[in-house]
Amino acid sequence: MTHGQVWPKPVIQNSYNVYLEFEQENFYFNSTGYSCDLLHEAFKRYKGLLFLKAKKTSQWLRRLPKNKIAGTLEKLNVKLLSPCEDYPSLNMDEKYEIKIRKSGGTLMAKSIWGILRGLESFSQLIIFEKYCLTFVIRCTSITDYPKFRHRGLLLDTSRHYLPVQTIISMLDAMSYSKLNVFHWHIIDDNSFPYQSKAFPSLSDKGAYGQSAIYSTNDIKLVIEHARQRGIRVIPEIDSPGHTLSWGLGGIPGLLTQCSDTDPNYFGPIDPTVDENYSFIKTLLTEVNELFRDQYLHLGGDEVNMNCWNNSKKLQTFMTLNNISNVEGLEDYYFKHIFNITRELKTVPIVWEELFSDNIHLDHNVVVQIWKPNNFSSLVQEVIDSGYAVLISSCWYLNYIKYGSDWSSFYNCDLSDIVDRNNLLLGGEACVWGEFVDETNVLPLSWPRASAVAEVLWSQVTNYTEARLRLEEHTCRMKRRGVPAQPANGPGFCTY
Amino acid sequence: MTHGQVWPKPVIQNSYNVYLEFEQENFYFNSTGYSCDLLHEAFKRYKGLLFLKAKKTSQWLRRLPKNKIAGTLEKLNVKLLSPCEDYPSLNMDEKYEIKIRKSGGTLMAKSIWGILRGLESFSQLIIFEKYCLTFVIRCTSITDYPKFRHRGLLLDTSRHYLPVQTIISMLDAMSYSKLNVFHWHIIDDNSFPYQSKAFPSLSDKGAYGQSAIYSTNDIKLVIEHARQRGIRVIPEIDSPGHTLSWGLGGIPGLLTQCSDTDPNYFGPIDPTVDENYSFIKTLLTEVNELFRDQYLHLGGDEVNMNCWNNSKKLQTFMTLNNISNVEGLEDYYFKHIFNITRELKTVPIVWEELFSDNIHLDHNVVVQIWKPNNFSSLVQEVIDSGYAVLISSCWYLNYIKYGSDWSSFYNCDLSDIVDRNNLLLGGEACVWGEFVDETNVLPLSWPRASAVAEVLWSQVTNYTEARLRLEEHTCRMKRRGVPAQPANGPGFCTY
Repeated sequence: MTHGQVWPKPVIQNSYNVYLEFEQENFYFNSTGYSCDLLHEAFKRYKGLLFLKAKKTSQWLRRLPKNKIAGTLEKLNVKLLSPCEDYPSLNMDEKYEIKIRKSGGTLMAKSIWGILRGLESFSQLIIFEKYCLTFVIRCTSITDYPKFRHRGLLLDTSRHYLPVQTIISMLDAMSYSKLNVFHWHIIDDNSFPYQSKAFPSLSDKGAYGQSAIYSTNDIKLVIEHARQRGIRVIPEIDSPGHTLSWGLGGIPGLLTQCSDTDPNYFGPIDPTVDENYSFIKTLLTEVNELFRDQYLHLGGDEVNMNCWNNSKKLQTFMTLNNISNVEGLEDYYFKHIFNITRELKTVPIVWEELFSDNIHLDHNVVVQIWKPNNFSSLVQEVIDSGYAVLISSCWYLNYIKYGSDWSSFYNCDLSDIVDRNNLLLGGEACVWGEFVDETNVLPLSWPRASAVAEVLWSQVTNYTEARLRLEEHTCRMKRRGVPAQPANGPGFCTY
Repeated sequence: MTHGQVWPKPVIQNSYNVYLEFEQENFYFNSTGYSCDLLHEAFKRYKGLLFLKAKKTSQWLRRLPKNKIAGTLEKLNVKLLSPCEDYPSLNMDEKYEIKIRKSGGTLMAKSIWGILRGLESFSQLIIFEKYCLTFVIRCTSITDYPKFRHRGLLLDTSRHYLPVQTIISMLDAMSYSKLNVFHWHIIDDNSFPYQSKAFPSLSDKGAYGQSAIYSTNDIKLVIEHARQRGIRVIPEIDSPGHTLSWGLGGIPGLLTQCSDTDPNYFGPIDPTVDENYSFIKTLLTEVNELFRDQYLHLGGDEVNMNCWNNSKKLQTFMTLNNISNVEGLEDYYFKHIFNITRELKTVPIVWEELFSDNIHLDHNVVVQIWKPNNFSSLVQEVIDSGYAVLISSCWYLNYIKYGSDWSSFYNCDLSDIVDRNNLLLGGEACVWGEFVDETNVLPLSWPRASAVAEVLWSQVTNYTEARLRLEEHTCRMKRRGVPAQPANGPGFCTY
């Protein structure tokens, strides 16, 4: 296990064989630049995380020769060079610099988001010294910034409902690994926990139960908790497929009836009904107002084309409208949906099927790649077509395996991809919910998602180098209350 | 999901389409036979489990026509036909009978252990009725007893330390599935958390830390908690391999030095040193006094024969003593160990290697089979040689897989085994600790271990029949505070 190593590994770090100790009670953050509520809240938060209780027997401890401690770090000067932005965005500046010297400590960044990342790194530099039983920090300088702008984690709250408190814990853990996007796959076939103001019956009838609903206040709480940590929250309103739960509380005729003989066999949203588009417009408008991010995920994956092919009604519609196949119907559907997102001035994200099915995409659409086979050639194709890309193919965390499978998350080779216009925005670890609920989502996700976070942030491409650092990071998460499961096999954390 | 089905499935159950309701506050257990502390404690415990809070929206609920409720069940008459035994054993009688009739409810058993199993079943029969918002029970009669006497779960507290509270939760969950043996693999190469009175330095130096030790009181607490639930606790003192952690605090010369050139390369216990046998005798005597079970697991798996082969000292010893190979050395070692267990009047359990290596076994030794390949022919061989057998080959729960892998635990075909003398005692689910600690052991083990419990108890051999019942059982465990992970995919429990 390492001691005081930062996760993900900083781009540039020089360390010196000199340490400073802390007087826990007197240490403070000294704001020497711009300031705002985000900064003050972060100071409070990190004061609680810097000096977590250690025990004599802890492996967290490191024994230093006494003469290596050269002084005391009384404060950290925190210099924010520009006024705070209110909400994080794709192009937020996360760069920061840390200098820890005998003469003092400084954290500097152009943006509040860089300051947040720097505070996390600073908190991770602190170790508990075995000999003097004191907290110390190594003299070091760090210049750090992410490789990719979009470093996300997808949670699926439809296949199993996740309590708000569980989502909050996930956000905390994300911030400990500098992940910056929570992709909230909030609804799907199985349940509709999103409580709509315009259409309350959607969750009244489509949620698993009254105790399995996200109210407006719940969602605001999640968004604010995330914002405080520089994490964007992007909701996914997946359609036209994956919408069976909409059928329970939505407007009549919303879903396609796939069969003329079985009236209870429903499929994707019926793209031939004009009222359905008004319904979706109202829903997306409301969602777009509640969630503060500029991006909105529209889904578009795994549309049940058999259903559309088998519906006489839809086949008649296609004939009348000169639509030659069901992909044309999908195109027709998304023409309407992109009209809505354009009006809402939101940037759409869609799953890869829309690109593969040759749907007409607005120029600003982001395509998220999820299928594992041959994904890098598809990434290249999307980039060459001028669209921005997110990658998830390598990082389906719900597919569990025995052992240290986090190492495989480093084997996501993007080095051959030619990306002159920076269209590869980053990627997302996905925690689909078929077999995941509040009982296992935290240990299943951590520290495995931390590996994805490092691949997306740092220049490290070699998991053997990461192994011992991940061990430390796992124990650090446990000390902070995240039930992170063992990373590498037998071992012990005191916390 | 089923409603009010018992897990594991009873051998004989007849249900009638008539229900009785409860007045929660007034319901009581009425002891009409023998009684003892175990019975009274069980009454208290189950009073807390019978009527767990339900919500209107719960899937636990079932809507019954009002006229199906034919009366009230005021009490359960509990008739224990013999005085209580103090501690459970291999041959304890777990048979019980339940009769729920309009005229009253009865639970009857010859032994307190049967009463405990019956109370668990009774508690599982109770459901919350949606229409009247009341707890009800279906009129039913059950005659039930286990297929196998030994239905265990192995926990490994050496590769990762498990807090006592976690073990307690595991015992609770075991009792909800009628498992009756906690096989405590308490020490191993990685750490020595068992605090020995005779040799405190074993854990002082061999445990992961002061906070990763099981004191005598901790162990007594675990044993008593288990006893109250009719669960035996069998400790495993694995030797001569898997003992590296003993080397840190044991007597000098305890472990074999495998190499003449590398003084830090240690292997199994050195079988040539007489003092080692006195040391082990003191240790086993102490363990045997503390743990109350008649059985003691001696391990014996995966002995590093290369080490013994490479040690000049051992090779010389073998020449002097006419021992022709290292299996002979192993035999020499276990001759001493069996002398000890014979003196202690304890029944030894050993891993399959001792049988395969043709070690001389005492007639009463139990052989535990763990390797997966061709295990049933080895089982047959052991039985044919007159030894009792435990099976774990099919049930290594630590080997996780995506999805409903519990179904594979039913595919442990023992039907071809000829066992005229009832030597197949049962089996154990194993939760080895390489990647398991307190963060994930509960969701990883439940409901997967419940599937093993059913295979060992009931006549059910078909997992499709078990599917919906396991769904109910999982939700029941969650209501009772066991974080059991999803069994079958998307779904929801209210609790």
